[in-house]
Amino acid sequence: MPEAIDLLIEARWIATVDSDTTLNNHAVAVHNERIVAVLPTREARARFAPARHVKLPGHILIPGLINLHTHAAMTLMRGIADDLPLMDWLQKHIWPIEGTHMSPQFVYDGTRLACAEMLKGGITCFNDMYFYPDAAASAASEFGMRATLGITTLEFPTPYASDAADYISKGLAVRQDWLGNPLIEFCLAPHAPYTVSDATFERILTLSEQLNLPIHCHIHETAQEIADSLQQHGQRPLQRLRKLGLLGPNLIGVHAVHLNDDDLELLATTSSNIAHCPTSNLKLASGFAPVAKMRQMGINVGFGTDGAASNNRLDMFAEMRLAALLAKGVSGNAQALPAGEVLRMATLDAARALGLADKIGSITPGKYADLCAVSLSPLETRPCFDPVSHIVNVAGREHITHVWVAGKCCVDNKTLPNHPQNDLESAVALWQNSLEFRQQP
Amino acid sequence: MPEAIDLLIEARWIATVDSDTTLNNHAVAVHNERIVAVLPTREARARFAPARHVKLPGHILIPGLINLHTHAAMTLMRGIADDLPLMDWLQKHIWPIEGTHMSPQFVYDGTRLACAEMLKGGITCFNDMYFYPDAAASAASEFGMRATLGITTLEFPTPYASDAADYISKGLAVRQDWLGNPLIEFCLAPHAPYTVSDATFERILTLSEQLNLPIHCHIHETAQEIADSLQQHGQRPLQRLRKLGLLGPNLIGVHAVHLNDDDLELLATTSSNIAHCPTSNLKLASGFAPVAKMRQMGINVGFGTDGAASNNRLDMFAEMRLAALLAKGVSGNAQALPAGEVLRMATLDAARALGLADKIGSITPGKYADLCAVSLSPLETRPCFDPVSHIVNVAGREHITHVWVAGKCCVDNKTLPNHPQNDLESAVALWQNSLEFRQQP
Repeated sequence: MPEAIDLLIEARWIATVDSDTTLNNHAVAVHNERIVAVLPTREARARFAPARHVKLPGHILIPGLINLHTHAAMTLMRGIADDLPLMDWLQKHIWPIEGTHMSPQFVYDGTRLACAEMLKGGITCFNDMYFYPDAAASAASEFGMRATLGITTLEFPTPYASDAADYISKGLAVRQDWLGNPLIEFCLAPHAPYTVSDATFERILTLSEQLNLPIHCHIHETAQEIADSLQQHGQRPLQRLRKLGLLGPNLIGVHAVHLNDDDLELLATTSSNIAHCPTSNLKLASGFAPVAKMRQMGINVGFGTDGAASNNRLDMFAEMRLAALLAKGVSGNAQALPAGEVLRMATLDAARALGLADKIGSITPGKYADLCAVSLSPLETRPCFDPVSHIVNVAGREHITHVWVAGKCCVDNKTLPNHPQNDLESAVALWQNSLEFRQQP
Repeated sequence: MPEAIDLLIEARWIATVDSDTTLNNHAVAVHNERIVAVLPTREARARFAPARHVKLPGHILIPGLINLHTHAAMTLMRGIADDLPLMDWLQKHIWPIEGTHMSPQFVYDGTRLACAEMLKGGITCFNDMYFYPDAAASAASEFGMRATLGITTLEFPTPYASDAADYISKGLAVRQDWLGNPLIEFCLAPHAPYTVSDATFERILTLSEQLNLPIHCHIHETAQEIADSLQQHGQRPLQRLRKLGLLGPNLIGVHAVHLNDDDLELLATTSSNIAHCPTSNLKLASGFAPVAKMRQMGINVGFGTDGAASNNRLDMFAEMRLAALLAKGVSGNAQALPAGEVLRMATLDAARALGLADKIGSITPGKYADLCAVSLSPLETRPCFDPVSHIVNVAGREHITHVWVAGKCCVDNKTLPNHPQNDLESAVALWQNSLEFRQQP
């Protein structure tokens, strides 16, 4: 008597990521939001009676991708100020716009746009650092997307909060409101060593330990940041964070471009995690993160798109491909960061950084069914000798056909079901008009 | 009385590339394969009676992209040997496969696959270096695509030819057969300084001068190539080519990764052209070409995808984006290679390198109507503050909707008309089977 289940997905290939083997003609059985079995398609058909049955004869099924660092709502500022040095970009464009336009509605609309883009691009979970996390949680929740939302903390005021204590208390209150929601998690998000005081870092460390929350923080993004810290604190930012106790398996350090041997050693020995953002690091001319070296030393690294104002896509396929290419160029070793490792970094390793590796990140019975199907049928993906290599080197997000989060279909044949794109389009058009108006002299 | 023309294309934006201004709500009038006017849409409607009228209300129209360096037929080896050092890759995989499988049919099928991929990706012209140029010409011609085909020359034998003289005479004969075809051009293509003798380079120079053909040659791709040349010839490859008289406006040097100040000076003072292949240079760990520096010195640079075995896409959008990002990272200047310059390099500058700037490369009355329409309507491309920046930083080849070559529509609403994809698919599948068989131990 076949077992009744919610969903059976058959695929030409499956990269489970919990082993290095690519499965041929296998199926994933899903019930009650979770993966219940991964087995040969022939066996699956005999064993299960699925309510829904999806056949992917020319596709590879991979775990949902995890965007380990973004500022989702900044999609509304996509391309508003390109080809500019970091400080001009921040001080003359991004900060003034945020100062004028930042509101719950801005974050809600911007995050909805980000969710639409990310889901269609195979991203099932994102680690966000921005303002009004309540608005971001509403947006993600509406799209059925998984998110870890930052309790963003700065010393200086923005329209959202007045000082560090205010940012933290507002963030904790939002977390309280969303407690128990199966898709929405929170983390502490001190913006950067140069915008957060020692006292605030200490408060954040205490909260992280009490509430068991990750800490999400920009770190060593530019050479200037390190020079400034040496002048102001007499030590490099990572040394300062180490002294404050921030380094450890709860830390997700973002960027980590400029690392000397001591920095690398600190990250490795403390089991700190890194969110590598290759596009953003190049676009803002920050530099080249030594990712191959980090991996050799056993440092856990995932990938982030950063915000759409410094990328300008929220596209994990682009980040995987660029990370794989850059690691080879920077290390001078064409074998650095092979495709299988890149896919694991974008899924399981990122889940580990978020403290979610027992729930997501691989196609493993017991984990939530966060899945992404990539079609390798189009001519530009042919021939295909190794589908995992194709994920990194050939395919793009445009080849994604289906995405599931906790077993729920969020992208079906390349379309977002149940989400009125017209409403989102007109909201974005309104923001574009209002930001363009600002740009006039 | 309105003027009868073949085609009127109205677009929300037009980047003509012959000026830096982006035109709003303009139209391109096409007659007898050529652009006859670029003017405001309202005026165009009054002035012309087009046989065909295409409206692109959310699109930017740009010149067709030019792939300045590829080995088109290598699409059949896409992803067959990834994450390997250059010499393993070449000696254990690529050369043995070519030695066994190379044939006119291989080149014809591989080039058809490449043309399908390139056209759908907005590439209207490619500069090819491979074997059996007659088969490549047939493939390109069948797709209505513009190509400059290399008279590839090596000293050593392949299934195609026995020695340098044989390569050259076969190539010249094919050129003779295609003389007068409006879309098919030829160039001399000595493979590289390390595979071509001084005597052969001299012969090639003579032919280039007699027939007024460009010379397409790999140059300074790896540090090893330079070290070997110093040992064998007592000089760097560029010095050797200069002495032989090869440097000049007819030369398209491919890669040019490792350049010292003297090399840069040589390229600049001789008005040599460079085909920059950023993906291939990273994937094979060759290094980072100093493109921002080249541009500052006035060196003409276009972009190439290289072959699909070392990329693994023939995607000029990916190359434009990567080149723009790398130039910023390598120079440490976020203003290096701004989007408008990148688009010009991929079109007009590449046309100049091929000696075709009077015919193609910009949307200019009198030139052939080689055009590409990119939709900036999808959510992941919104909002749009600067459509040219979006071409480089946001859009991908998946956003291309229409492509014209010499006024003929080659991609219509994302599809290739009149080309039986099934036949091409089955041909590619046959090759995949036969190459996979080879891969078994």
